[in-house]
Amino acid sequence: MATIKDIGVAAGINILTAIGFLVAFAVLRLQPFNDRVYFPKWYIKGIRSSASSTTGAVRRVVNLDYRAYIKILNWMPAALQMPELELIEHAGLDSVVYLRIYLVGLKIFVPLAFFAFAILVPINWTGNNLNSNNNEVSYSDIDKLSISNIQPGSSRFWAHLLMAYAFSFWTFYVLYMEYANVTCMRLHFLVTQKRRPDQYTVLVRNIPFDPDESVSEFVEHFFLVNHPDHYLTHQIVYNANKLAKLVEEKKTKGNWLVYYEGKYERKPSKRPKNKIGFWGLWGKKVDSIDYYTSEIERLTKEEAEERERVKKDPKAIVPAAFVSFRTRWAAAICAQTQQTRNPTLWLTDWASEPRDVYWQNLSIPFFKLTFRRLIVAVSFFFLTFFFMFPILFVQSLANIESIEKKASFLMPIIEIPVIKSIIQGLLPGIALKIFLIVLPTILMLMSKFEGLVSLSTLDRRSASKYHIFLLINVFLGSIITGTAFDQLSEFANQSASKIPEMIGNTIPMKATFFITFIMVDGWAGVAGEILRLVPLVMYHLKNSFLVKTEKDREEAMDPGSIEFNVCEPKLQLYFLLGLVYATVTPFLLPFIIVFFVFAYVVYRHQIINVYNSKYESSAAFWPDVHQRIIVAIIISQILLMGLMSTKKATQSTPLLLFLPVLTIYFNIFCKGRFESAFTKYPLQEATMKDTLEKAREPNLNMKEYLSRAYIHPVFKDKEDENDQEEEFGKVLVPTKRVSRLNTPVTSINYSTEIIP
Amino acid sequence: MATIKDIGVAAGINILTAIGFLVAFAVLRLQPFNDRVYFPKWYIKGIRSSASSTTGAVRRVVNLDYRAYIKILNWMPAALQMPELELIEHAGLDSVVYLRIYLVGLKIFVPLAFFAFAILVPINWTGNNLNSNNNEVSYSDIDKLSISNIQPGSSRFWAHLLMAYAFSFWTFYVLYMEYANVTCMRLHFLVTQKRRPDQYTVLVRNIPFDPDESVSEFVEHFFLVNHPDHYLTHQIVYNANKLAKLVEEKKTKGNWLVYYEGKYERKPSKRPKNKIGFWGLWGKKVDSIDYYTSEIERLTKEEAEERERVKKDPKAIVPAAFVSFRTRWAAAICAQTQQTRNPTLWLTDWASEPRDVYWQNLSIPFFKLTFRRLIVAVSFFFLTFFFMFPILFVQSLANIESIEKKASFLMPIIEIPVIKSIIQGLLPGIALKIFLIVLPTILMLMSKFEGLVSLSTLDRRSASKYHIFLLINVFLGSIITGTAFDQLSEFANQSASKIPEMIGNTIPMKATFFITFIMVDGWAGVAGEILRLVPLVMYHLKNSFLVKTEKDREEAMDPGSIEFNVCEPKLQLYFLLGLVYATVTPFLLPFIIVFFVFAYVVYRHQIINVYNSKYESSAAFWPDVHQRIIVAIIISQILLMGLMSTKKATQSTPLLLFLPVLTIYFNIFCKGRFESAFTKYPLQEATMKDTLEKAREPNLNMKEYLSRAYIHPVFKDKEDENDQEEEFGKVLVPTKRVSRLNTPVTSINYSTEIIP
Repeated sequence: MATIKDIGVAAGINILTAIGFLVAFAVLRLQPFNDRVYFPKWYIKGIRSSASSTTGAVRRVVNLDYRAYIKILNWMPAALQMPELELIEHAGLDSVVYLRIYLVGLKIFVPLAFFAFAILVPINWTGNNLNSNNNEVSYSDIDKLSISNIQPGSSRFWAHLLMAYAFSFWTFYVLYMEYANVTCMRLHFLVTQKRRPDQYTVLVRNIPFDPDESVSEFVEHFFLVNHPDHYLTHQIVYNANKLAKLVEEKKTKGNWLVYYEGKYERKPSKRPKNKIGFWGLWGKKVDSIDYYTSEIERLTKEEAEERERVKKDPKAIVPAAFVSFRTRWAAAICAQTQQTRNPTLWLTDWASEPRDVYWQNLSIPFFKLTFRRLIVAVSFFFLTFFFMFPILFVQSLANIESIEKKASFLMPIIEIPVIKSIIQGLLPGIALKIFLIVLPTILMLMSKFEGLVSLSTLDRRSASKYHIFLLINVFLGSIITGTAFDQLSEFANQSASKIPEMIGNTIPMKATFFITFIMVDGWAGVAGEILRLVPLVMYHLKNSFLVKTEKDREEAMDPGSIEFNVCEPKLQLYFLLGLVYATVTPFLLPFIIVFFVFAYVVYRHQIINVYNSKYESSAAFWPDVHQRIIVAIIISQILLMGLMSTKKATQSTPLLLFLPVLTIYFNIFCKGRFESAFTKYPLQEATMKDTLEKAREPNLNMKEYLSRAYIHPVFKDKEDENDQEEEFGKVLVPTKRVSRLNTPVTSINYSTEIIP
Repeated sequence: MATIKDIGVAAGINILTAIGFLVAFAVLRLQPFNDRVYFPKWYIKGIRSSASSTTGAVRRVVNLDYRAYIKILNWMPAALQMPELELIEHAGLDSVVYLRIYLVGLKIFVPLAFFAFAILVPINWTGNNLNSNNNEVSYSDIDKLSISNIQPGSSRFWAHLLMAYAFSFWTFYVLYMEYANVTCMRLHFLVTQKRRPDQYTVLVRNIPFDPDESVSEFVEHFFLVNHPDHYLTHQIVYNANKLAKLVEEKKTKGNWLVYYEGKYERKPSKRPKNKIGFWGLWGKKVDSIDYYTSEIERLTKEEAEERERVKKDPKAIVPAAFVSFRTRWAAAICAQTQQTRNPTLWLTDWASEPRDVYWQNLSIPFFKLTFRRLIVAVSFFFLTFFFMFPILFVQSLANIESIEKKASFLMPIIEIPVIKSIIQGLLPGIALKIFLIVLPTILMLMSKFEGLVSLSTLDRRSASKYHIFLLINVFLGSIITGTAFDQLSEFANQSASKIPEMIGNTIPMKATFFITFIMVDGWAGVAGEILRLVPLVMYHLKNSFLVKTEKDREEAMDPGSIEFNVCEPKLQLYFLLGLVYATVTPFLLPFIIVFFVFAYVVYRHQIINVYNSKYESSAAFWPDVHQRIIVAIIISQILLMGLMSTKKATQSTPLLLFLPVLTIYFNIFCKGRFESAFTKYPLQEATMKDTLEKAREPNLNMKEYLSRAYIHPVFKDKEDENDQEEEFGKVLVPTKRVSRLNTPVTSINYSTEIIP
């Protein structure tokens, strides 16, 4: 049991780590040569460009202005200054609503912490259970603040019961208001949005095979018959997966060519050579520049052939199409209705934005989809409950003895005691650590295998898988030590009413563990996020080896984006911890509040200056967020019930039974009230936008506007890209903010002190 | 433990009872004065009418033709003769698909029984567990045929495992084929259906209040804007609940007037008198004829006033309307899309047939609906698990001692030993029996309270409630003796893996009980159904006291209908029993097969000759039926797993784990493949029908056709009714069957031997 002093030491260490990261960030971001790492968003928007060459060479690399270093934390208020509406304009609704999750955390937990400290802590403190009964075991002060300090059967539990109700109702209130708010923001965003191809377009999948007509003709005839007055045009989908691969390969080999050419330039005496086998480790040694030049020639030829083949071969046409309509009204109707008797053919759904489409999955037929879903469900079950077994196996292989056996030449080094103990200490954890790092990628692959057709749904589906994994393996796994599989068999052999009791009983004892977890994973983790170590290193590597032109430099930039599939489930863990411990060990709440504040500021800064989102789903993820907080509430209520029943609070415990029922009812109510705004498109809104548009632009050529909107990225010509960029530029609204002197960014109207 | 002999005796008794009922039915149905009880369907269709008065008075009442009595079982083949297509024409798709449930039972269980007897019974019979191990307890022959006779840990369990897989797959096959078949029948029925108002009409609920416009104007404006080219007309809904009550009261009092007038006619010496208090038991004594005449006058006046008020008072208009469109396409679109941002306003849904509408619930707002659903869910939970408590309380009141105390004048009679023992034997059961009889009514009231707006959905919702109740209280309640509440607390305190073991273990021992149950409830119950004792008595009572004109006689007829909310859940119990015992005690299967055959014949007869369905939902209930059989399969698989694990079949049991997963996957697959045919209306079908209609009847005045289709029944004028009947008559297709000499019904082309 950790005392307050222990926690204080741990907090100190973590605060110092976080401060170290922040100082490093503050210094690094001021250096002009890091500008593209820490402010890529502004480069992408075209507002900021590389320092002009008229300034001195040193000043282009290092910032020598001492004043900049004094205001080392000025980015924080700067990050908070941009108003929400401008932020939506700047970074999209997804990012803004994502930030609101942190605000929801604060709205829930600040009042909870206040009342818990004002009411529960004094009641717990004077409970005297730990002093009187168990003198032989030493308890920490934290436990004296927790529910453990109340004597079994005491009538003080009524206070906890009342607070559990109050906390639940307050959480309901916050969630309800927030759902209403986000719904309103989404609808307003959709209304004020400029014209976008996806508003008029429906994705049609599983078009049946017709022996007499091509896919394109068949689609046209079908929709001319069934939506006679509304059908406008359509675009067929090519299976360009092979072509995309060739393009990708060409790009990689091109990069290598540039790299070797640069090497040769620097050292003209020796022509660079490399091995052509796996990862350049073995195989024939060739002259690198000649080899890659010939490879690129070959690929260029192959690519041209494939491009022709795809365009001509009817087999390259996938039985799917993007069908566009004259009005938003007609598109909304087509997307929400069934077209034919057979519900597995002519499946219509909203088309996602062109950049959001996941092209690879467009051709999977209905039958395979259900089958794939079964496979993914089963394998996810095994992944969650049995993931420890392969890791244990790897660990058993990777111990010192087997290394010594297989690589006997390492023996002398390994046998040095210090190194041996380090290896023995690290090795067992490494396999697990690697697994946890690649886990989101595995889950994303599973979601891709399921056949989802847009990046946004892929992100959402992966997030819900990751959430379940974290819930079972991190939350429950930390409380009941042992693997998830052990838990599973334990649960199966325990009675249903014993399980909450068992978990509830251990909950108070794990408080200090979770406090440390919050500090390490939350505080230091968020500080690490702002430092962007990996993109920093990668950028400078690319910059020194591959970048020749300004365009190369632009491509070397990696703004990244909010990784919703990883960040959101992790965030949910904090909600769960906060809600579970609010009534049990209120001492944990301030740590969570600090996390939410800190993470909010950091992510707001990143969203303004760094991230460039891959798509815009108009906050389509909010129902998931809401749902998961509801799950956290229910878990906290059940665990409190279990805990109180072990405490013999027989009078008050049964009254807790109503809480989960109320929570479920609240969830159903919210679903009915708000969810449709995220899944349907009201006809009234569509009509309104259509009418307005007709009045404003009566001569708009919709057909031309839509004709090339949904085209596979590899077919996009250079002109197309330029067109799009132009269009994008037009939409940019110059910022109207008054002051941004503290943020070292150049907006259209203002220039700051750093870049001369 | 019952032996085969005991079962034989029980079977004998029940067969005799059933035969008794059948003989009574065979005799009673031949008597012309019962004709309207046993053949009401034909009267309603207008094909049969009361015997003409030219025949002798006796022959009108009693059938003296001895030949009719010889062919006493001829109704059976007759019931099977009508081909399915004609039956759909005659009784609607609902009835035909309902009959298919029995056929599904036969398709599943006949092959199951065959293979179980060919493979499992010999394996069980030679198992020798019961002979060798437990000589002290006497086991019956039935147990020797069951899985109990296999020694623990025997490798013979592989046979049961394989058969469990084979049975499941066969059931999947039958269910899949049947789902496909019913889907096809439904779609074909919808296509070939004549023009009906509900095809063009959408029910709009929760129309918001507008201070400037009346509901009618608001609806018209809204749909003219949002469905500009498609909106045709609408009908507002009046809150005529009070008016309907007045009409009902007037009718009842009119009946009493007729009754007393008849009494006075037969006995002119004494004017009849009655008390006006509760049920005529107390209150002032009045002259009956004068009293009812004045009452009817008063009610007629009140009714006229109310009728005027409803038509004029804007407050009597409910915020709901039936909105009709020009085409089926437009109606399908409006029903399946959301109209405005706020998903709780302007709710659109398919309008049900006019006769299917449940008018009372049309005015409930959205907020109340979710709240009512919560209340019903909670009260249904308590009803299911705690229903025994009030019954025990009533039983404690209704014992002999308390009767003696309260009604001491009965003392001498009660104290007679025979009577005392009868009362003591009957009393405890009576409260329970009454409860079980009124249970479906209670469940229907709950469903009505939930706010469903059509009779068909009310029936379906009540059926699923009743199914859950039967599952928990009859099936599990019989296996684990004790109330459902005891089970609940037992389950909560048992481990999750112990529950199936516990139940599985007792399953084989309960086989004889369930065999008896099938014979009493199934065989004798079905035979009782065909006898129609209650309608028989009611008809003759009404006929002798109330009937004066031919029209009165028509109203006295009570054809009834398939009570889907009661019959279907009961039927599901047989599926469950069959599936559970197929691998455990195959001896039970023949009893179930006999039940399905017998019930199929009886209900087919009833559907042809008796029932008159209240609505036509085009087999909308099939997904529920399918779903419940799936639940039965999963229960049977889990129980078999539990049973096998207590039998120490450690090698084979884990392989059973895949079965429930497969079953759930099969269910998801079927849902995706077929369910949409029951919830959506494909646009292609709508367009096809619209185009055909336009070509056939280009000058059809749709507006007039729809203008009075959805009008509250109390506002229907006599002319309307006649119109409808005329239209109904037009649709009747003369039967083309060749022979119906055995069924004593008159079709248009044939007259049979009974009615001269």
